[in-house]
Amino acid sequence: MDYQDAFKTAVSRVRAEGRYRVFANLRRYKGQFPKARWRTDEGDVRDVTVWCSNDYLGMGQRACVTETMKQAIDDVGAGAGGTRNISGTTNYHVELERSLADLHDKDAALLFTSGYISNSATIGTLGKILPGLIIFSDALNHASMIEGVKGAKCEKHVWRHNDVAHLEELLRAAPLDAPKLIAFESVYSMDGDIGPIREVCDLADKYNALTYLDEVHAVGLYGLRGGGIAEREGLMDRVDIIEGTLGKAYGVMGGYIAADGDLVDAIRSFAPGFIFTTSLAPALAAGARASVEYLKSAHELREAHQERAATLKQRLRDADLPVMDSETHIVPLWVGDPVMCKRLSDALLDDHGIYVQPINYPTVPRGTERLRFTPTPAHSDAMFDELIDALQEIWVRFRARRVA
Amino acid sequence: MDYQDAFKTAVSRVRAEGRYRVFANLRRYKGQFPKARWRTDEGDVRDVTVWCSNDYLGMGQRACVTETMKQAIDDVGAGAGGTRNISGTTNYHVELERSLADLHDKDAALLFTSGYISNSATIGTLGKILPGLIIFSDALNHASMIEGVKGAKCEKHVWRHNDVAHLEELLRAAPLDAPKLIAFESVYSMDGDIGPIREVCDLADKYNALTYLDEVHAVGLYGLRGGGIAEREGLMDRVDIIEGTLGKAYGVMGGYIAADGDLVDAIRSFAPGFIFTTSLAPALAAGARASVEYLKSAHELREAHQERAATLKQRLRDADLPVMDSETHIVPLWVGDPVMCKRLSDALLDDHGIYVQPINYPTVPRGTERLRFTPTPAHSDAMFDELIDALQEIWVRFRARRVA
Repeated sequence: MDYQDAFKTAVSRVRAEGRYRVFANLRRYKGQFPKARWRTDEGDVRDVTVWCSNDYLGMGQRACVTETMKQAIDDVGAGAGGTRNISGTTNYHVELERSLADLHDKDAALLFTSGYISNSATIGTLGKILPGLIIFSDALNHASMIEGVKGAKCEKHVWRHNDVAHLEELLRAAPLDAPKLIAFESVYSMDGDIGPIREVCDLADKYNALTYLDEVHAVGLYGLRGGGIAEREGLMDRVDIIEGTLGKAYGVMGGYIAADGDLVDAIRSFAPGFIFTTSLAPALAAGARASVEYLKSAHELREAHQERAATLKQRLRDADLPVMDSETHIVPLWVGDPVMCKRLSDALLDDHGIYVQPINYPTVPRGTERLRFTPTPAHSDAMFDELIDALQEIWVRFRARRVA
Repeated sequence: MDYQDAFKTAVSRVRAEGRYRVFANLRRYKGQFPKARWRTDEGDVRDVTVWCSNDYLGMGQRACVTETMKQAIDDVGAGAGGTRNISGTTNYHVELERSLADLHDKDAALLFTSGYISNSATIGTLGKILPGLIIFSDALNHASMIEGVKGAKCEKHVWRHNDVAHLEELLRAAPLDAPKLIAFESVYSMDGDIGPIREVCDLADKYNALTYLDEVHAVGLYGLRGGGIAEREGLMDRVDIIEGTLGKAYGVMGGYIAADGDLVDAIRSFAPGFIFTTSLAPALAAGARASVEYLKSAHELREAHQERAATLKQRLRDADLPVMDSETHIVPLWVGDPVMCKRLSDALLDDHGIYVQPINYPTVPRGTERLRFTPTPAHSDAMFDELIDALQEIWVRFRARRVA
């Protein structure tokens, strides 16, 4: 067994498919988001405009967040120094959990170090707390939910994406008295479509299932207070477990669930991914709380965000570029080939100072490669002009496809 | 199926065993570590001395770390805004990975959002990259490594804790040409004993196995530059994968692996727990790098730390208190019952202003409950006096056991 050869071979397969990942080395200019400094492999530093950040509202740059973080560092220091149970709970954590419970109008919330861990730990642990659990998982659920489903080690059924008829078929076939969990997302991050929350909740009532909704690409962005799509649709009380992140619209880092108090207490007491890890740095908890509270009332920022996304979609359509259908702020542009996708992305960065990452497998299915734009309220009309001109130039130069 | 009842019942089992966890709400005073403010359930705030932090050297309070974090916040803002691949790589991440590779004298290092994820994602992914992998896991490995082993979905064998004869027996029984991984720790966090690194590496050579060493309770603390026990023993080059944390001795948050470049590139390219998560907040990466670099030369801090641990052990022995055997800075005091453990911990906090968390199942096996002290260079002789007096008082009051 030649291990080095095995690792080389694994990576060379990725290279051969044209989806080897090179991380762009960026440093944003605080206060000038979405502008950033890009350090090339040769060590040059060049200014670029970031078009693919999940800091959807630029909250990671806002003084109420950054100053709160600095104050927390001055107050208590850098890290938490322990797990939540062993010296790692501060008042910042307690208050943030209260803010999040309030945001979703639930009894309680529980913080995790990331959205990824929120999903994998919570879903995995539900499988242990509820013997005989059957999980019904949307086909396009995020990798972290899939990891949770695997970790739950229970019977699972995958329903076709957003297909509630298929979901009902699967629910109907399961024993009536078995505990059931329906896991799905509100905003699917790579397509920008929305899960059928009301229909899923109706089915959950009919078949006595728990509902688990990933709102990571929606919290802060939808609903009157930023509670997500479920808030916007008036459905928060019908979803049993809402999972969210502090690392996207809230601009910081970390994940959470919000739910009934007993459920949260059970996850808190049984989930290894919650118990056995150093808790979020206090400054992150402090900054995230400032951001959550700010966005509870800054509805104009959400409106500006929606306007930018709608405008970009229209401008791409007007330019005869293959913008994909999306019901949300996520604006994917079809490419359909990993090598072309990387080539277009490289040319945008090298020749136009526009940074948008190629989205290849495993982030999206093979053959559906794309560029994914996330315009924020800080992306100006002038930046839109630059982007459209650049896209036109490279689409012609590389003869990229015009039809999705 | 009554879900609420199921969750209530699960938690009531934990309560019935006396191991329901109440998180102490603490706020350290920056600059006065290990002093902190404790907020009681009634909302009172009282001063306490923290005796169970994993911020082993107080680095989370040190200006070179906290000021660097604040500068990074001023420079680029709060969160990373994306995964490492999608706009979430900054120069802070790149430089920290270089610092860590240098620390362990390896080609490369890879950051994760926590030590927990480093272990679960890396070990789980090795199972996918190396078809037919057989994992040999020490019986007392951390929960995160166990999760990785489960996630690897491959043949596994658990060797009796630190028993290299048993490990060899298991290795000998496996097919010679099968890929093999031996996973173990350097410092076991709840007992303070040390894994037999040299003997394991000898066996790995003999049976052509990869070695995976968790050094989370050792990095920063052992070795001339803080590279851990493997550095101290001159064995870093013989360990294939060294895993560490930035959340304990380095005082910040996050985890990493350091290894051969091809191996790191393969994990980087295949591990869902690395790929699909918002990267560490830039300020954490910046602060962690400052801490790692500081501790590469601050050997006197490591010596002071060892002196404090040795002195505390001696003072506990002199006081006829049941200190458990430990080869390291971790000082466990035997209790052997979860209810008694909680009672002693509560009395220390309520009546003496001393905070040390009860360590109960699932953190340690049932029947081995303990108080776990982690004296730092900032714990003064006067604090030692207070602690010993308080322990004597409660040991008499509650008739706790004197023999481990």
